[in-house]
Amino acid sequence: MSLIPLRPGMTPATAAERSDAARNRERLLAAAREIIQEGGAQALTMDRLAERAGVGKGTVFRRFGSRAGLLLTLLDDSEAAFQERFLFGPPPLGPGAPGLERLVAFGAARIAYVVEFGDLVLAAENASRSSRFEVPAAALWHRHIEVLLREEGFTSDPWLMAGSLGAALDPGRLLNLVRVHGITADRLAASWQDLVTRVVKGA
Amino acid sequence: MSLIPLRPGMTPATAAERSDAARNRERLLAAAREIIQEGGAQALTMDRLAERAGVGKGTVFRRFGSRAGLLLTLLDDSEAAFQERFLFGPPPLGPGAPGLERLVAFGAARIAYVVEFGDLVLAAENASRSSRFEVPAAALWHRHIEVLLREEGFTSDPWLMAGSLGAALDPGRLLNLVRVHGITADRLAASWQDLVTRVVKGA
Repeated sequence: MSLIPLRPGMTPATAAERSDAARNRERLLAAAREIIQEGGAQALTMDRLAERAGVGKGTVFRRFGSRAGLLLTLLDDSEAAFQERFLFGPPPLGPGAPGLERLVAFGAARIAYVVEFGDLVLAAENASRSSRFEVPAAALWHRHIEVLLREEGFTSDPWLMAGSLGAALDPGRLLNLVRVHGITADRLAASWQDLVTRVVKGA
Repeated sequence: MSLIPLRPGMTPATAAERSDAARNRERLLAAAREIIQEGGAQALTMDRLAERAGVGKGTVFRRFGSRAGLLLTLLDDSEAAFQERFLFGPPPLGPGAPGLERLVAFGAARIAYVVEFGDLVLAAENASRSSRFEVPAAALWHRHIEVLLREEGFTSDPWLMAGSLGAALDPGRLLNLVRVHGITADRLAASWQDLVTRVVKGA
């Protein structure tokens, strides 16, 4: 299975983007992450980023196009790292563990990810024009859950079931539970484990 | 269990809203439903409604406040009818059938509802300022699923599990599956039945 590029042409380094350019990009993204860590996603403006990174505003706009482009680039980097972990990382999240164990680990990792990158996820969702159901990253999680269900011998419409299970991990829903209802990540992960165990073993 | 008013003060008739006024309201809503049936929710404007119902534009604005208010009133009427069916209607959707049968029927009815009122649901979601997780109708379905899970002896965090199951019935998600992926209502209902059966019987 190969990595699906999350935003084709944006994240992967092109031939022109080497050494200095790549270092500058990393420096800008690191500065952007610092700003978000200190004041949330709403604190991240193109002006503040230019100031923090000690570059001209023009450089920031040339690099990311717009604030929305910057947010999506940040999220793509985090998503690519997460994707790397569940596709190629150590078990039980990565290959090598039984399907159900990987499903359980996937939910727990996803919940932790959303809690960590919540502001960014919501800001990018609002900045993006595509439906929340059609982003490439969402298609990849959906496919991942489906593959693990099939591995466990689940044969009754695994594609649709994978979507229903994935809906329980919808970032907006998880953040609402954490922030509005004060549910802990541990309690969310325990309920996810219960859900996928019943679906795989049940009926 | 009593009916939760979906938009307090909007739908229930007040003392001043009687006979003639109530008839006028019904006539306007019927005209609005006709317009939507013919051209989708985007065809429904305050101008067109006034013209269709043969009243002045001022009357329409006085009655509904805004186009968003009109959409929410239409949706509230449909929601109230749906609510009536699953709280007080005949089994298996209404009381009298076992919890699992009612859960299965609830999903099937909800899917049919979303397919029928899809445009309206999406338009009202966009027009409303409240989070899609905090609308009163969503709180009521959530509670309904939780009560049915408890009836079936489900004790491991039924509130959170009800939310996860309810996420599979998210209107935007269902409409995306129907309209973008061409999934039939029957296939959605079958997968829902499989999901809730496994959750209730499994593990």
